[in-house]
Amino acid sequence: MTRLYVSVFLLLLILSSTAMADSALTVEPPNWWTGMQSSQLQLMVHGKNIGLVDRVTVVAEGVNVTRLTPGDSHNHLFVDLTLTSAIKSGTKRIQFWREGQLIDKIEYDFKDRNPGSSSRQGFTQADVIYLITPDRFANGNESNDELPAYAEGVNRSAPGGRHGGDIAGVIDHLDYIAEMGFTQIWLNPVLENAQPEYSYHGYSITDFYTIDPRMGTNAEYLTLSRRAQARGVGLIMDVVLNHAGSGHRWMDDKPFADWINFSGKFSPTSHRRESLRDPHAADVDKKQFSDGWFVPTMPDLNQRNPYMANYLIQNTLWWIEFAGLSGLRVDTYSYSDTQFLSDWSARVMQEYPNFNIVGEEWSENPAVVAYWQKGVENFDGYLSYAPSMFDFPWQVAMRDALSKPEAWGSGMVELYEAISNDFLYADPFSLVVFPDNHDMSRIYTQLNENISLWRMAMVLTLTSRGIAQIYYGTEILMSNPGTDDHGVIRTDFPGGWPSDTVSGFSGKGLTQAQREAQRFLQKLLHWRQSSAAIHNGSLTHFAPQDGIYIYFRHLENESVMVVINHNEVERAVDLSRFTERLQGFNSAENIFTDEILILDTSLAAPAMSASVYELVR
Amino acid sequence: MTRLYVSVFLLLLILSSTAMADSALTVEPPNWWTGMQSSQLQLMVHGKNIGLVDRVTVVAEGVNVTRLTPGDSHNHLFVDLTLTSAIKSGTKRIQFWREGQLIDKIEYDFKDRNPGSSSRQGFTQADVIYLITPDRFANGNESNDELPAYAEGVNRSAPGGRHGGDIAGVIDHLDYIAEMGFTQIWLNPVLENAQPEYSYHGYSITDFYTIDPRMGTNAEYLTLSRRAQARGVGLIMDVVLNHAGSGHRWMDDKPFADWINFSGKFSPTSHRRESLRDPHAADVDKKQFSDGWFVPTMPDLNQRNPYMANYLIQNTLWWIEFAGLSGLRVDTYSYSDTQFLSDWSARVMQEYPNFNIVGEEWSENPAVVAYWQKGVENFDGYLSYAPSMFDFPWQVAMRDALSKPEAWGSGMVELYEAISNDFLYADPFSLVVFPDNHDMSRIYTQLNENISLWRMAMVLTLTSRGIAQIYYGTEILMSNPGTDDHGVIRTDFPGGWPSDTVSGFSGKGLTQAQREAQRFLQKLLHWRQSSAAIHNGSLTHFAPQDGIYIYFRHLENESVMVVINHNEVERAVDLSRFTERLQGFNSAENIFTDEILILDTSLAAPAMSASVYELVR
Repeated sequence: MTRLYVSVFLLLLILSSTAMADSALTVEPPNWWTGMQSSQLQLMVHGKNIGLVDRVTVVAEGVNVTRLTPGDSHNHLFVDLTLTSAIKSGTKRIQFWREGQLIDKIEYDFKDRNPGSSSRQGFTQADVIYLITPDRFANGNESNDELPAYAEGVNRSAPGGRHGGDIAGVIDHLDYIAEMGFTQIWLNPVLENAQPEYSYHGYSITDFYTIDPRMGTNAEYLTLSRRAQARGVGLIMDVVLNHAGSGHRWMDDKPFADWINFSGKFSPTSHRRESLRDPHAADVDKKQFSDGWFVPTMPDLNQRNPYMANYLIQNTLWWIEFAGLSGLRVDTYSYSDTQFLSDWSARVMQEYPNFNIVGEEWSENPAVVAYWQKGVENFDGYLSYAPSMFDFPWQVAMRDALSKPEAWGSGMVELYEAISNDFLYADPFSLVVFPDNHDMSRIYTQLNENISLWRMAMVLTLTSRGIAQIYYGTEILMSNPGTDDHGVIRTDFPGGWPSDTVSGFSGKGLTQAQREAQRFLQKLLHWRQSSAAIHNGSLTHFAPQDGIYIYFRHLENESVMVVINHNEVERAVDLSRFTERLQGFNSAENIFTDEILILDTSLAAPAMSASVYELVR
Repeated sequence: MTRLYVSVFLLLLILSSTAMADSALTVEPPNWWTGMQSSQLQLMVHGKNIGLVDRVTVVAEGVNVTRLTPGDSHNHLFVDLTLTSAIKSGTKRIQFWREGQLIDKIEYDFKDRNPGSSSRQGFTQADVIYLITPDRFANGNESNDELPAYAEGVNRSAPGGRHGGDIAGVIDHLDYIAEMGFTQIWLNPVLENAQPEYSYHGYSITDFYTIDPRMGTNAEYLTLSRRAQARGVGLIMDVVLNHAGSGHRWMDDKPFADWINFSGKFSPTSHRRESLRDPHAADVDKKQFSDGWFVPTMPDLNQRNPYMANYLIQNTLWWIEFAGLSGLRVDTYSYSDTQFLSDWSARVMQEYPNFNIVGEEWSENPAVVAYWQKGVENFDGYLSYAPSMFDFPWQVAMRDALSKPEAWGSGMVELYEAISNDFLYADPFSLVVFPDNHDMSRIYTQLNENISLWRMAMVLTLTSRGIAQIYYGTEILMSNPGTDDHGVIRTDFPGGWPSDTVSGFSGKGLTQAQREAQRFLQKLLHWRQSSAAIHNGSLTHFAPQDGIYIYFRHLENESVMVVINHNEVERAVDLSRFTERLQGFNSAENIFTDEILILDTSLAAPAMSASVYELVR
């Protein structure tokens, strides 16, 4: 009897081993961690007929299988696990049974979390974010430019083609980034975009757990994060919750029938984000906005399906934990299901209470942007947990303020008025301000290549309330004259390719204007790193008069004065109007020139200038 | 002894009667009523050295003198009375004593309130307000054109001069107003403006209790109110709380040193209303906005002085009670002290809980306008009690929507987007919408004298959510081509002067376009009077597509569909998108043509048209 048992057991073992050997199961997330806040983990298992499995066992203490849910497609199975404190890190075997037969198994890793992972500090107002379009920054590894598995290779002469920039290129230039004075890096998405064409931008994700091999590997992404961190620079991931790329395997085999909005067929979004809050909106408009697709190549994900919602939430947590991220930038924020956004942001912030998330809601209406920020009291009770949003209203106002002539309602007053709307925000100091980004003309172009205006834009961005973000190449006056083609806006950073004869990194071949701009920005960034008044200070601004806009960032014992003169001539500014903020200070030190100014009756503001002073008692 | 007493008494009586005979005391309010909600009444007594009085007695039951406050000027005395339920209507003697001597007395009337006065219904969404600049509407009494006591007489050829229109002129044409279909009249201010020049507009008030004799008398104003009411038309007073006219006697003898802002000397307002809410505003900017004057001829009242505040509150209550008003329009709302505005609006609404107040906050920013409406939850806890505000953001959006070409962010979508901001308001249905007013170009001029656009503007105004307001002369296409001179905008209504050869009242001499416009508007107004869906219905609007903007006003059993085609060509509108609002209805009746439309698959929208349909089951 015993003998027979053993034989049967061996036979089964051999049979099952054979089955394992060619197991084609994939499991997402590919691993998990012990000690997460949430005890729940939902595995999405993919493999031929895996949905027919009727039992799953895990050979581990502290892991209980609580529910199995087959997808509408037989090739998908969702396995709900409850993790208890008894779980220990290590590889666990997960076994899949059908009608009493073990038909497949996988090895699944539970890792220990990094120390302090949960309490990590997200990016703050002390930070300046360097936004990089990684295909266009530096080609650190030419061997991954063309890969047989991917249809689209490199075509550097096509504005919309892949140019070969990669994660290795960013790693190569971390010293440059840190020395310029940036303290955070935000890369446009680097996950796999296995699309036949126009894939360089990264927003058509075809694998939510794998770095695009043309960009690098998951390991390289982790290296980037660690090496950046060693230089005091954080890494922000660009997260796409709203859509996938049409090349995603889901499009051939949807886990559930409602996995993709509009039954998986293209129906364009209306882009009428107003409808979400509009008390008079038609239901059809709300649906078309949220469920409609951006473009036919970006299938819109249905986050009302709870398995999709869980998938995206776990995917986000996985990357934060895996790569040691310091924050998230969320693409097309409002286009996702609103309740999902509330749940998603709550889960992220529950796991990482000091973390930061900045959402993209491209609206010039501050009431629309404010709706999504954590802490705001919304008229409809909607709760968001994203601490930050991009301040698009500020960007437009700043550009218009500098571009337009001075008049009663035009010029600097436009920025003043925009900032006066800060009462709409739960926390205006946590917004991210920026002169431009990858989706709009370069700020130097928006300001008609006027170097004075460019300098003013840099000062405004880096001294305004909020976290600052600068797009790569701004420091060397990159521009897109005569076109707003995105491929041109996202021009290759000179010096990033071995064949480049000009280098923004070394300065070789730059014009004098470029070198001066770079030094100007570097000086401002380094000063900003040390200014507690910028990091934590209040803002007091005075209504612009005759093109002079003056504001202060101040703590109890520290005060910074910014003087903008938006006139083509020098102006003497009568200081008596600013007594409430100048009282107790005797002089002011210009942070660019180190000159000391005695705070007397008036101040000379040079033509078309932005001066920054530290006040001295 | 008795004899002597009597003699002394008689002597005193004779002496005091003599004193009374030439008493130069004025008391404001000039009378009061029994049965008001508030038991407090504060009399402002003016007369030479009246501030030296040390005792005041009132010979009446139920009236107690609770406090005497001399002004900083000896010619002012504030007498606080507490009225109890024992008070009976009638004339009461008020006696003024100094060092035991009766030095003056006055007779003061307490009247019975009109029945239902407290519960009167203010103007509502069922109303359309006809705004009249009374100097420019009709000269009903030529004998009051030139008065010896007033420096400025009639000069009809000067755009900024007085033209002689008056209250009698409005009374004369009440039938016209009612027959057109208006249900409320708002007159620009008619109180005394004893200014040397530019006084026709009425906003430089020099006596807060007296109709300007060139406009008529207090009695005529009451007659206007009663005769209007007899025709179902309410009367709205234009209230100026922020400033007086420089010709006010106060300017020569201020009751208190702080009666007028900036110590009675001209310092211009910044007009930067943003500073009020701006969390970063400088104190100096807030002060300059609120305390600064409009112009040197309009001294800015300091409502932080409690006697000034009381004066203005009682003045408002007095006019409501005296003239049987149905509402107030408040000039330059936000420029007054904000706490005062809260107190003032609370007191008015406490006395008249169903009343209405519409404030002028000329901002295109809905968040700024929303701040002042009753019921809104302001970030700073500020409480307002004004049920309505003028919807300036709507006006700008409506004009731009009609004036600008159709494109992604231009054309009808501008109005759609503006209305989508309604979530900011406590009650968007209580806002007052208007195509123009006395301070801006005539709508026909704003729309480049395009009659199709003008008709669309009328339909939008009269079917939008909210109370509607139309400026006099709009019905006959009055315009101000080539200028925005206020005196031209406020052109005389033809037919209002005996010498006029053209008459908007009779139609004599009007062009065909004018007559058609008048009939169009009359038809729309009469239809609106009967439409419960407009008076009380919800609004559902659909995002404009290709210049077609469709919205519905609907109750459970009644629905109005408005179809705007902002294209130069007829368009067939696919009705399937509107199912959520068309379901259950079989046909639609065009309110202009009475044509019945079968609600089939599509609808033909004529080029550049605004069609209004009542849906039929």
